[in-house]
Amino acid sequence: MNVFSHPDFDDHEKVLFGSDPASGLKAIIAVHNTNRGPALGGCRMWPYNNDNEAMRDVLRLSRGMTYKSALANLPLGGGKAVIIGNPREQKTPELLRAMGRLIESVSGHYITAEDSGTSVPDLKIMAEETSYVAGIHEKHCLDGQLRSGDPSPSTAYGVFVGLKSAVQYRLGTNDLSGLKVAVQGVGNVGFRLAKHLKEAGAELWVTDIYDDMVKRCVNELGATAVSSDEIFGLDVDVFAPCAMGSILNNHTIEQLKAKVIAGAANNQLENDAIHGEALRNKGILYAPDYAINSGGIIDVCYERLGNDDPDALNQHIESVHDTLMEIFSRSDSEQQSTHIIADAVARERFANPRNIHQAA
Amino acid sequence: MNVFSHPDFDDHEKVLFGSDPASGLKAIIAVHNTNRGPALGGCRMWPYNNDNEAMRDVLRLSRGMTYKSALANLPLGGGKAVIIGNPREQKTPELLRAMGRLIESVSGHYITAEDSGTSVPDLKIMAEETSYVAGIHEKHCLDGQLRSGDPSPSTAYGVFVGLKSAVQYRLGTNDLSGLKVAVQGVGNVGFRLAKHLKEAGAELWVTDIYDDMVKRCVNELGATAVSSDEIFGLDVDVFAPCAMGSILNNHTIEQLKAKVIAGAANNQLENDAIHGEALRNKGILYAPDYAINSGGIIDVCYERLGNDDPDALNQHIESVHDTLMEIFSRSDSEQQSTHIIADAVARERFANPRNIHQAA
Repeated sequence: MNVFSHPDFDDHEKVLFGSDPASGLKAIIAVHNTNRGPALGGCRMWPYNNDNEAMRDVLRLSRGMTYKSALANLPLGGGKAVIIGNPREQKTPELLRAMGRLIESVSGHYITAEDSGTSVPDLKIMAEETSYVAGIHEKHCLDGQLRSGDPSPSTAYGVFVGLKSAVQYRLGTNDLSGLKVAVQGVGNVGFRLAKHLKEAGAELWVTDIYDDMVKRCVNELGATAVSSDEIFGLDVDVFAPCAMGSILNNHTIEQLKAKVIAGAANNQLENDAIHGEALRNKGILYAPDYAINSGGIIDVCYERLGNDDPDALNQHIESVHDTLMEIFSRSDSEQQSTHIIADAVARERFANPRNIHQAA
Repeated sequence: MNVFSHPDFDDHEKVLFGSDPASGLKAIIAVHNTNRGPALGGCRMWPYNNDNEAMRDVLRLSRGMTYKSALANLPLGGGKAVIIGNPREQKTPELLRAMGRLIESVSGHYITAEDSGTSVPDLKIMAEETSYVAGIHEKHCLDGQLRSGDPSPSTAYGVFVGLKSAVQYRLGTNDLSGLKVAVQGVGNVGFRLAKHLKEAGAELWVTDIYDDMVKRCVNELGATAVSSDEIFGLDVDVFAPCAMGSILNNHTIEQLKAKVIAGAANNQLENDAIHGEALRNKGILYAPDYAINSGGIIDVCYERLGNDDPDALNQHIESVHDTLMEIFSRSDSEQQSTHIIADAVARERFANPRNIHQAA
């Protein structure tokens, strides 16, 4: 039994194991760092095979949230929660309420949100027991409409902004007309990104495991459908991974012809050190995933803070441009991969309290 | 890494691992059960060799507090905290304040108190950061004097009451005059117990690792000093262990001539199942340690509740009589050792919320 000496412990402030035999709840809440503010991160429910798997997952995800929120200049720390169990079989209102009580018991050091295996209705049940739940309220959009807590439009908008920054840095243009972009995965976020790109004049190639998602892009955006294998080797300017993780690996990097990688997927690099460096050596500009896909957490943070001014939100999301430009130029001057630099910039933003300015 | 599947996990409600790199704090707070009320238990500081040792200790001690407080009919649950470190080298005000903040972060589900490696002055530093600290205020005694948070007089009084109950049950008398009692360990609690016994007319045999403690008993109470080996085999009515644990084992039980064992030490049975049964088979009535030494926790609880009426406190301590009588008679009727019965009675008092009456 090791927590403090776990390879992924990395100075977590708190790791709380909670159980409620009456409802069957077994959960871990990890709070990595709260220097910038309370730790916000999703609550995942997953049938982990053992404590160790759950522990590893929650520690890595929690730490990742510290880096992500710091890089996005949010007044938030990093945390995460996992419920050990099968969401289809074991998720009951009693279990969710017990989870709400567990969250309440850590006094606001951790704020939860939706994640794999949990939904907005689930969070609303947790919210019967705790006020530390984010992303469950409707809000105003720039188009004046009310929408649910779903932050994917903000994620997509941030990725679009960051993609333009990368194109500007690597290809020297602010004009996306005629830009060739391959989008892998056109679900909630990928489709919205594709739409932004289409509106800016880009040409699109798309793939998805669901045919109807692909058809929507072909019909509505004039995209060209390709197979899941073809997407990597297309002769395009930009590759935008918006599906699963680990898709930047030895096998795929070899095929890539794009000069820019900028997409919404989490954990795109199969191995951060090896494949970040491989991309740099190949002259491909990689916009680090957690730097470019921060629109979602920014959105959730604004909701949490009760700031429903859509202009302020979008302005904050657009700050991904400055962050990426700093990462890109330091990557060149320091001869390090963009991923390494992103980590360093994030650490500068959370580790030293003097650098912390509450931007939201 | 196993917490939920740890052999000592036993449905703990919460196990919190906290670290504060700035002060070097590494601590675990375990909250076993709060059905009866917030979990109260000491905060130990100890140079554990690894996480696992610390984890095992905190889980077992925390669970023990649930049983102890339930058996004492207190409106408290069971919990415990351990700080991993050498109290002589690593205990700094910064570390204690960080521990105070960790305790504060669990929202009153856990209330701390003095334990091995921590002192009342240490707790007062923790109390700068949290209100969930017990046993640090002066209070009125039955004799009208103010005294510090030290609960040993209450522990000693409870053991005296329980010893009388055991004598009544096993020897059929309420009169202690001429009763022969061997007291092992005459420190804070043991000396006070010896004094109560002397005042009731008992004859005393004592031993201690410190000669001055023994001399005090000889001079003030007319006790007979014996060696640490002799204490077990004396031809006495009662053996009162008030020093270290595990002293009821194969080696010592063989020597015992006493008909009653009633003392303040923790964890007197080397092996609960084996040696509890060995005593029963030998016709020795064993007053389970955690049932008879609950005066201390009752004292701390009354202080915590702001109830400084010494009559109410003593009346509550005297309820150890009824609890022991229930244990003794069920032990006979169910043909089980008193230790096993004590556990069962405790479980009845905390596991089923319908049985919970806040007695304090």
